[in-house]
Amino acid sequence: MKDDKIEIVIDYHFKDQSILKNALTHSSFINDKSKLKNNERLEFLGDAVLELVVSHYLYENCNNRAEGEMTKLRAKIVCTDSLAMAASDFQLGNYIYMGKGEENTGGRTRKSILANTFEAIIGAIFIDGGLEEARKFILCKLKNNIDDSVKGKLVFDYKTKLQEHIQQKADNDIDYVVISEEGPEHDKIFNIQLLLNGKVIGSGAGSSKKEAEQHAAYNGLIFLGEVHEK
Amino acid sequence: MKDDKIEIVIDYHFKDQSILKNALTHSSFINDKSKLKNNERLEFLGDAVLELVVSHYLYENCNNRAEGEMTKLRAKIVCTDSLAMAASDFQLGNYIYMGKGEENTGGRTRKSILANTFEAIIGAIFIDGGLEEARKFILCKLKNNIDDSVKGKLVFDYKTKLQEHIQQKADNDIDYVVISEEGPEHDKIFNIQLLLNGKVIGSGAGSSKKEAEQHAAYNGLIFLGEVHEK
Repeated sequence: MKDDKIEIVIDYHFKDQSILKNALTHSSFINDKSKLKNNERLEFLGDAVLELVVSHYLYENCNNRAEGEMTKLRAKIVCTDSLAMAASDFQLGNYIYMGKGEENTGGRTRKSILANTFEAIIGAIFIDGGLEEARKFILCKLKNNIDDSVKGKLVFDYKTKLQEHIQQKADNDIDYVVISEEGPEHDKIFNIQLLLNGKVIGSGAGSSKKEAEQHAAYNGLIFLGEVHEK
Repeated sequence: MKDDKIEIVIDYHFKDQSILKNALTHSSFINDKSKLKNNERLEFLGDAVLELVVSHYLYENCNNRAEGEMTKLRAKIVCTDSLAMAASDFQLGNYIYMGKGEENTGGRTRKSILANTFEAIIGAIFIDGGLEEARKFILCKLKNNIDDSVKGKLVFDYKTKLQEHIQQKADNDIDYVVISEEGPEHDKIFNIQLLLNGKVIGSGAGSSKKEAEQHAAYNGLIFLGEVHEK
């Protein structure tokens, strides 16, 4: 895992590498001896940058929408599910500095961590390169979600989305199978495989069966080409 | 009432005067025959610009504050009371295009209208002149509120603020007197005078006695030099 690889993925080169490192540092990575800062202040800033860029885009591109409608669209575009979905698309989870405990309990695929780190990176680009660079990054990574949202098609329920896709062909059969349950009762991790006509097309982990199934469905949609993995 | 006068007050000259007119147009001014648009879409955009500018200021100037603290500070700085107070300071109410009905029921001093129009002007400056011009305007008009908030001194309860100020001198006596009640029972407007030792030092109108008293106290604070009227 190297920070310069993520610069290729996000298509932005930081003048100040310490800001990038700050943006990628989850609170679980910090211990008392460490001089590192976690990414929460950058997340605070990035959240506001994101809100402005999306608001401006909607203002410019949805002339016929009233303020109330735009507020609803914006909320959907910047919600945790939307950001986590976009962050998954470029495997942001792989680049986050996090504690072993967090990692072992599925931290790299946890929606809240993905969404918050995505916002921290936005904040970091804003500080390092200004609003225009942040706008480019946001519109590149969230354009599909924005367009889907404007068309009323942004769906975060991957199981439903997969079901709808599968139903287009008759006699398709999907099945979610629990492969393993790890950890103590109060902190279990479920691993689930998704089978389409008996063939594994995705798998997912999560702290509940429901969450693991959603992740498996999401990976299944990537496999089927319905979600684009950039 | 001319739009060019407000340009002096806000210290920004619009390249596109129609955006300024749009920002100053309350929904009550619009009728079916009018081709004008109300300012709600600009308010939507301005709200996001304001949030970013304040977030960035806090990020840069409060190095020792955690994300949760900054979120609370920001919420206080951008709340309706704070924006209405700042908007009152430059008499924004006088420049708003509003319907007669709204005007006759105290619309020009209504906090929600003042705050929303303030945000609409921020949105208009952002569209017309970009983020830097919007930042200049926001920091000029909200700097006192931001600094007071950071110091934990931002107070919107003007009656309490006045009381605290008055108590510094012994044998001061303040009194709120209802001068008139206008309009039907369900839509009354109260006019109240504030007396300090029997002398009128402020007056205020509102849809409740409480609201009218707050406005009177606010004007009393201006009279006493405790709130600055720019």
